[in-house]
Amino acid sequence: MSQVEIATPKTRRKAQGVGANEGSIARIRELAQARVAIEGVEPMIDAGRFAVKRLAGETLTVSADIFTDGHEIIDAALITRGAGDADWRETPFTFLTNDRWAASVSFDRPGPYRYSIIAWRDVFATWASDTKKKRNAGVDIALELREGQILLEKAAASGRGSKDDQKRLKALRARIDKLAAKGGGDALYEAMTEADTALLLREVGVRENLSRFEIDVPVWVDREAAGFSAWYELMPRSQSGDVNRHGTFDDVIKRLPDIEEMGFDVLYFPPIHPIGKTNRKGKNNNVTAQEGEPGSPYAIGSAEGGHKDLHPELGSFADFQRLVTRAADHGLEIAIDFAIQCSPDHPWIKEHPDWFDWRPDGSIKYAENPPKKYQDIVNVDFYAGGAIPWLWLELRDVVLFWLDKGVRIFRVDNPHTKPFPFWEWMIAEVRERDPGAVFLAEAFTRPKLMKRLAKVGYNQSYSYFTWRNRKWELREYLTELTTAECAEFMRPNFFVNTPDINPLFLQTSGRPGFQLRLALAATLAGNYGVYSGFELCESEPLAPGKEEYLNSEKYEIRAFDWRAPGNIREDIRFFNRIRRSEPALRDFRNLEFYNFWNDEILYYGRRTPDLSSFLLVMVSLDPHHPQGGHFEVPLWEFDLPDNGSVKVEDLVTGQQFVWSGKVQHWWFRPDERPYAVFRISV
Amino acid sequence: MSQVEIATPKTRRKAQGVGANEGSIARIRELAQARVAIEGVEPMIDAGRFAVKRLAGETLTVSADIFTDGHEIIDAALITRGAGDADWRETPFTFLTNDRWAASVSFDRPGPYRYSIIAWRDVFATWASDTKKKRNAGVDIALELREGQILLEKAAASGRGSKDDQKRLKALRARIDKLAAKGGGDALYEAMTEADTALLLREVGVRENLSRFEIDVPVWVDREAAGFSAWYELMPRSQSGDVNRHGTFDDVIKRLPDIEEMGFDVLYFPPIHPIGKTNRKGKNNNVTAQEGEPGSPYAIGSAEGGHKDLHPELGSFADFQRLVTRAADHGLEIAIDFAIQCSPDHPWIKEHPDWFDWRPDGSIKYAENPPKKYQDIVNVDFYAGGAIPWLWLELRDVVLFWLDKGVRIFRVDNPHTKPFPFWEWMIAEVRERDPGAVFLAEAFTRPKLMKRLAKVGYNQSYSYFTWRNRKWELREYLTELTTAECAEFMRPNFFVNTPDINPLFLQTSGRPGFQLRLALAATLAGNYGVYSGFELCESEPLAPGKEEYLNSEKYEIRAFDWRAPGNIREDIRFFNRIRRSEPALRDFRNLEFYNFWNDEILYYGRRTPDLSSFLLVMVSLDPHHPQGGHFEVPLWEFDLPDNGSVKVEDLVTGQQFVWSGKVQHWWFRPDERPYAVFRISV
Repeated sequence: MSQVEIATPKTRRKAQGVGANEGSIARIRELAQARVAIEGVEPMIDAGRFAVKRLAGETLTVSADIFTDGHEIIDAALITRGAGDADWRETPFTFLTNDRWAASVSFDRPGPYRYSIIAWRDVFATWASDTKKKRNAGVDIALELREGQILLEKAAASGRGSKDDQKRLKALRARIDKLAAKGGGDALYEAMTEADTALLLREVGVRENLSRFEIDVPVWVDREAAGFSAWYELMPRSQSGDVNRHGTFDDVIKRLPDIEEMGFDVLYFPPIHPIGKTNRKGKNNNVTAQEGEPGSPYAIGSAEGGHKDLHPELGSFADFQRLVTRAADHGLEIAIDFAIQCSPDHPWIKEHPDWFDWRPDGSIKYAENPPKKYQDIVNVDFYAGGAIPWLWLELRDVVLFWLDKGVRIFRVDNPHTKPFPFWEWMIAEVRERDPGAVFLAEAFTRPKLMKRLAKVGYNQSYSYFTWRNRKWELREYLTELTTAECAEFMRPNFFVNTPDINPLFLQTSGRPGFQLRLALAATLAGNYGVYSGFELCESEPLAPGKEEYLNSEKYEIRAFDWRAPGNIREDIRFFNRIRRSEPALRDFRNLEFYNFWNDEILYYGRRTPDLSSFLLVMVSLDPHHPQGGHFEVPLWEFDLPDNGSVKVEDLVTGQQFVWSGKVQHWWFRPDERPYAVFRISV
Repeated sequence: MSQVEIATPKTRRKAQGVGANEGSIARIRELAQARVAIEGVEPMIDAGRFAVKRLAGETLTVSADIFTDGHEIIDAALITRGAGDADWRETPFTFLTNDRWAASVSFDRPGPYRYSIIAWRDVFATWASDTKKKRNAGVDIALELREGQILLEKAAASGRGSKDDQKRLKALRARIDKLAAKGGGDALYEAMTEADTALLLREVGVRENLSRFEIDVPVWVDREAAGFSAWYELMPRSQSGDVNRHGTFDDVIKRLPDIEEMGFDVLYFPPIHPIGKTNRKGKNNNVTAQEGEPGSPYAIGSAEGGHKDLHPELGSFADFQRLVTRAADHGLEIAIDFAIQCSPDHPWIKEHPDWFDWRPDGSIKYAENPPKKYQDIVNVDFYAGGAIPWLWLELRDVVLFWLDKGVRIFRVDNPHTKPFPFWEWMIAEVRERDPGAVFLAEAFTRPKLMKRLAKVGYNQSYSYFTWRNRKWELREYLTELTTAECAEFMRPNFFVNTPDINPLFLQTSGRPGFQLRLALAATLAGNYGVYSGFELCESEPLAPGKEEYLNSEKYEIRAFDWRAPGNIREDIRFFNRIRRSEPALRDFRNLEFYNFWNDEILYYGRRTPDLSSFLLVMVSLDPHHPQGGHFEVPLWEFDLPDNGSVKVEDLVTGQQFVWSGKVQHWWFRPDERPYAVFRISV
């Protein structure tokens, strides 16, 4: 650090010599190019380290601070480029205020894109503006007109713009030369400053001091299923209708019409691979299974195979492929589980011992969260001796294997206990083959880890929704999800329940609780999910205060009467229907909370930018008592005064009426229905 | 873009072949290194494009989100490095909450630094924690103890830490081997988990998955004058005391004791170079000067020279050097103006016509802001034919020239009308020679341009302070300056007036207005400045409603009676004295506004982190009427209850007393003094 002390006059003089100037001159040339400052660029995740996400067709609005020194007029363009594009595409920026500019684009196909920004000094527009001011002030502008002509010559010389534009420029210059030859004056001034000239010069004018934002910001574009999907989860082995008979893929095929009728898009199965026998878990997570018990499907791998194999009792690959095809016929896409843990019988343990952790006594390390130990599961070690690259490649190939079988959606078990770099690498590898592959992160962990998983590539994320029941906490959480930076890369999937989560709220709420949680999930998130049994209002816990189901399908085969009385299939159909018919429900970020003067009623709007689909949703959060009160109709969103009127359609009942005035009233009875959905228009 | 469509099974299989895996494996190895995520790093300006600024000795606290997958314990270190340092220096991070970590450092010398972050999985700490949990749960830990010993072996093999630490490790291992040989048990467990072992292993333990933040974040460290200085501005030519005699550097030398007595640190002169004759401006900015009028010092350059020359009537270089030396004897550092504009007589115009803009008729382009035209000034064009690199180099050399004459502080005129890249380059070049060079940006322009100038290297910035008079706007503006991101790189210099700004407020406020604006400037910003005449409460405007001085020194020689009655020299002495004696006033970002229940009284605290210097400042913003009321004593900052007591010293009067209870009362009479400063302690 001694060098940074004040230089003596002698060393200073030396530094000014020719040698020192060589580096100085190189730095001048490098820096001088960026005369127009471009900063505060949004959206951008960690300075472009991770991609912003959009769905195909969805709008991406980029904004930035763009300015230069002095008073010259500037202009700017958003440039975008897909992986296979030969060149960048330009979209003009619009000036907002306070040196802020914005431009919007959308991308029509899934895949990787980049955007950046160029900006320049618009010499012709500056000339026109200055000349107008001088003329208005009575200054002689003869010299200015000559300067303007020189700018037109430079524009012609630069050759920018289309052939047609250059032709137009040629004609303009000929006309102007004639006017100048006649002595110039007002006619010349008019020709050079008329609207058409300004428009033409925007296309062909010289872009002086063309500057470029230094980062190419990555954008990942997904197909719609990544951001807008209704999931139905079931255990194939419980679909026979008989607890004594292991369900098969064919049993699942029989259930497809039923699931289609409810209106779901995605049909998701927990692991369908061979289940280990060593330390197999019994009913209700008993540490030892009785003879004949099926074990947990999450203990993957046995003598019958591993992650690239099917549990034999479910059926053959032919059966599975038939299921995939038939599901598609019913508008359903199959999602499977990608759970990296292994049973102690998994073939990898013998074939690739260097993918695992071995203890000094030669035993293998079981999964644990000390002092808890999961005896039916061992974990691979991603940094074990032979894991890099072979384990990573094999895990990637597992996903590619199922992709090959027609599965393009993967729900990933506990991704936060596996290295983030693995996910980043693996997801990128899969997407090179299929940019439509979708990964849902089942991470119920700390907020920053959940966000990181979304950053490294997950298309969808489980959320804290299951534990958010009060009005204030739902507002707070949804406001974060829809407006904080994470909205640019993390898309929640609101599951109302899962095989692991039997929400405490539902254990005492009765049927209205299931209806209201469904209403929230289906209208607050682009992606939402239901684990079968929910439609039957199943909620018996393993023990009081426990968040696990009694007699969970994770450890035994169950049979259900899917039409049992008290089911909420009609509610599910309703929400899945309006999700498809109402464009307002597609982008989860268009959420706006409105006032309902009752702390038990959550009230919010979802709308398209053009207001052509504008829904108001009210949900009573109280499953036990009638709730109601006054609320505000957001007349201001239509620029209407407080005494204005909107047409209303009650989407549940089909009734149509008019709300006149901003304050209206509504009432819920839990024995009817704890939600209301209105479509409003002017 | 057609490539991104869904790959067919055939192409997929091909992609999985050996060729494709080569790239895949390279990407694994690259990504796998960063197993610990490091993100949300603060402070960092534009992803490290620009430097964070600190003064030598000032604290830099870096915070970041640091986490990894799974439940392993992690650790992290801030690494810092100066330009001449052989290696990085480590400072341990401390865990805060919610995966947030922080570490603080300071730098003792001016110059360029970098910081980054490393983080790793602490395998030994994880082992100790897990083993403790298992032991507490009654699990046999014999195998765990063996595993712990292996970790110690690995630590020894890695050789990390000092020689002493490795010696300690050797001793520890010998002790542990002995205990193990005796059968292990509790004594072995204790030895391996005692506090000293944990401490030692923090130094020598293996850093598994050592990960590094990808950006080396630049930090620029300044000498104190860049962030803490009291400026006094005067026109040397007006220091003779006689309007008929041009002042000289020797006249300025005579005034040094007077300026020292007021307590200033920096003595700043507007341009001292030869003044052009062509189109010279007369008194009160008259477009034509009378014979004998001195002209504006901002019209730089004549037959007598340019930016590297002195106006002959001020004196010789010998005189100037004497002034610099004598000023230093009086504790004053000389600052000069760097104003890039030229008079039409500047030697550069003939010597370097290719640094200027020429019009088609062969005339030179005057400075203008259409329809306004500045006839006595022409501007260089930084992008003209010969400007790059020669103009840029010459301008740099002008600064180096004056640096050589002992000037290290430059107030730069209108930098926002010159290219940002020029400043970035030039300031960096000068700092390579003298990291203590200080540049003050005189940019009164849009907020983002002002911030950009600070980003590209300016150490200090003029501000909007002169136009902020109401309590709400002062609070709002100061909150931005002291807490928004710009606080990391932009240091305001609160000038109370300038030759160009005769604030409207002062034109009607009378003496109390000058006192209160002084109080605000001196206690709200690290840097503040006074343009001579302010201490005499000069405020006569060129015309009613105009922000310019009548008979401005910019266009004529003035003479003043510096001891004229009604001056506020005592107030200036007071504030400059407490600025030096109270460390609380050094860092402008330690500002906290408190409640005074009167909208005309601004009330705030400034304090050191250890509270040893804790000032409360009250300023009545009303120069015309008595103002007073109740205010809150911030007892909570000392963790005192609302009925607690603090010792108080009134720094103005020297009185000492006690405030008991949170709510107290104060009163201001404009004919006394519109401010109060209290030093509080427990």
